[in-house]
Amino acid sequence: MTAPPHEARPTGPARALPDTQQGMRRRNLARVMHAVRAEGPLSRAAVASRIGLTRAAVSTLVDELIRTGLLEELGPERPGRVGRPGSALAVSGRGPAGIGAEIGVDHLAVCAVDLRGEVRARAVRHGTNRGRSPEPVIEELTRLLREVVTEAEREGLWPAGLAVAVPGLVARDAHTVVRAPNLDWHDVDLGALLPGEFALTVDNEANFGGLAELWLGADTPRDFLHVSAEIGIGAALVVDGSLLRGTRGFAGELGHVPVHPDGPECVCGGRGCLEQYAGEEAVLRAAGLELGEDRVGLLAGRAADGDEDVRRALRGAGTALGIALTGALNLLDPEGVVLGGALAGLAPWLLPSLEAELARRTAGPPCPVSVSRLGPEGPLLGAAHSVVRAVLDDPAAVAGRG
Amino acid sequence: MTAPPHEARPTGPARALPDTQQGMRRRNLARVMHAVRAEGPLSRAAVASRIGLTRAAVSTLVDELIRTGLLEELGPERPGRVGRPGSALAVSGRGPAGIGAEIGVDHLAVCAVDLRGEVRARAVRHGTNRGRSPEPVIEELTRLLREVVTEAEREGLWPAGLAVAVPGLVARDAHTVVRAPNLDWHDVDLGALLPGEFALTVDNEANFGGLAELWLGADTPRDFLHVSAEIGIGAALVVDGSLLRGTRGFAGELGHVPVHPDGPECVCGGRGCLEQYAGEEAVLRAAGLELGEDRVGLLAGRAADGDEDVRRALRGAGTALGIALTGALNLLDPEGVVLGGALAGLAPWLLPSLEAELARRTAGPPCPVSVSRLGPEGPLLGAAHSVVRAVLDDPAAVAGRG
Repeated sequence: MTAPPHEARPTGPARALPDTQQGMRRRNLARVMHAVRAEGPLSRAAVASRIGLTRAAVSTLVDELIRTGLLEELGPERPGRVGRPGSALAVSGRGPAGIGAEIGVDHLAVCAVDLRGEVRARAVRHGTNRGRSPEPVIEELTRLLREVVTEAEREGLWPAGLAVAVPGLVARDAHTVVRAPNLDWHDVDLGALLPGEFALTVDNEANFGGLAELWLGADTPRDFLHVSAEIGIGAALVVDGSLLRGTRGFAGELGHVPVHPDGPECVCGGRGCLEQYAGEEAVLRAAGLELGEDRVGLLAGRAADGDEDVRRALRGAGTALGIALTGALNLLDPEGVVLGGALAGLAPWLLPSLEAELARRTAGPPCPVSVSRLGPEGPLLGAAHSVVRAVLDDPAAVAGRG
Repeated sequence: MTAPPHEARPTGPARALPDTQQGMRRRNLARVMHAVRAEGPLSRAAVASRIGLTRAAVSTLVDELIRTGLLEELGPERPGRVGRPGSALAVSGRGPAGIGAEIGVDHLAVCAVDLRGEVRARAVRHGTNRGRSPEPVIEELTRLLREVVTEAEREGLWPAGLAVAVPGLVARDAHTVVRAPNLDWHDVDLGALLPGEFALTVDNEANFGGLAELWLGADTPRDFLHVSAEIGIGAALVVDGSLLRGTRGFAGELGHVPVHPDGPECVCGGRGCLEQYAGEEAVLRAAGLELGEDRVGLLAGRAADGDEDVRRALRGAGTALGIALTGALNLLDPEGVVLGGALAGLAPWLLPSLEAELARRTAGPPCPVSVSRLGPEGPLLGAAHSVVRAVLDDPAAVAGRG
């Protein structure tokens, strides 16, 4: 890797920058970018009043951001307003882009998102990756990546970093897949397999899905549990707007919370884990169906058609989710739960029993459960946006390029 | 209240101060205090090299801290060293003190801790508070408080704030006890009952116990679960050196994680919660004993004497703790678990079955479980130290007084 992975890692708030004059300037550049991103187009005076700096200080910062291509001027504001007309500022639709990628059990996907948050290029390949060794999968992903970058460059964008969502546990180094049971991958360093020119971050798909929900969801609270599933069940714990990652990076393993402590054995070494009752494989088995591709589509289709075996299996999964979530809610006291990923598509049949279980185990009003509108797109979008957020959080770090 | 409660609240790191020149000065004052506290006595030059500021900048900060009585000079360092002799700096043993208080089910306690971390005054009253209304309990606590403050003042200390540990859920306002089932208190605003001259913080005893472990424990990691018990079972979740409090302030309710989802009914409205298997009442019942005062002493004494009923009951409690902790560890991935409060005294009989349960439910090496050396003192010390930490984190906020 030419750039250390932490450069592209979804950074914390900009105040984590060093506490010097130089650090203060960098934090203030970030404040300008975030203000314009959130509320733009804005005049320099409006930015100054939003972030509590003088007009003169903001002008210096804005000039730097325009010079380096992160902001652009839309020309003078329309006349008729009080005072000297200012030029409205907007986040640039050219310049740095976040490249997101997803290695799914059944697909590969790559996209490019600009600083405005728009998807500007995208490539997908369907087909199972189960049991394939990492090298050919990453070669295929790299081809999609090249396609997307070429398309993005045609539009005046350049890749500020690459973030990859994987269905497994990722080490805190943010490039090693420690364990992805449903790909059968162990200790795979994606940094060594992917092209070296991209600053790389790898994270669990549930984590990127949770971040997407935080950044792109409608009225998402800043404290919530994002529960998602493919074959396994994972959760992202978002606490005060940040991911709780755990010491090794393994936090959020909701699928291995014991539901019935003497229940069936689980791959994790435990017994009666949630995954044994609400994982896709368990639900298919309970419904008497085979494990194939597009499992969610199959279950949703049959449930919609009124297949009572499938509906009963999904009710059971909802109950098990309710028991495991009761434990998680007692521990974490979030503002809400969001069902994402594959669970979003099955929500109509999971939610009633899930919510009944929460209600019967809670004295007060139970924690609200909502369904993600991003669904299976969440992890890919979260990955790309994590790179964009890193640029917005420290614009000075990319200002030299482009 | 003369001072808003957040002034004494255990603050986050000093970098949460406003990002201005003034904020930078305040953060640097905090850095000087923390450096001298952690490694003192130190010369000005040694402080400068520790915190990466110039000698001249440090001298200005140190002069201010000496003037306001937070640091003191120990006189010139002994000769024989290279260069001009500097005067060694130490944290003052006079000036602001943290006042900690605990409302326990069976006792009341108050102590004063100076900036060096030493307990300088203390008062305790034994006797049950079960079923007593808040007013007489707080009157009694206030008498202890006055005793401790008088004694501290005699030694040149003044109270920088009061922090109170309670066996129940506390609202995020940090002064309202929302629910303390074992006192039978509901929605009690301690701010209205305690003397108004103290900046007040109220928190759950498990949280203050966890903070005490973080600040005073030997080799405590920065990510851990602190599990404690009186009649209920609570946990403090310490993530990267900070408490995870939850949206309403109710995080850490390990006692209400379902262990056997179809088990006995619980006061929380659920079924088969951990408290039904490992709470003091459940253990006493399983051992065929009555609920009285000094329940832990009774159980520990009988277990030590080889009472097989008590030992079996404690083994069962350890197994239930292991099941609930398996869920918590999968969700949070901490570096370790610390058994504190009443559980510390029972650890010899709980730990074997608890650790066996974790081992049999975990594929890799199980999370290490240790026993707090602070034991039942933890919450009181954590409360007092939280006030001391707030002073160290923002010395400028108290510099005007004394």
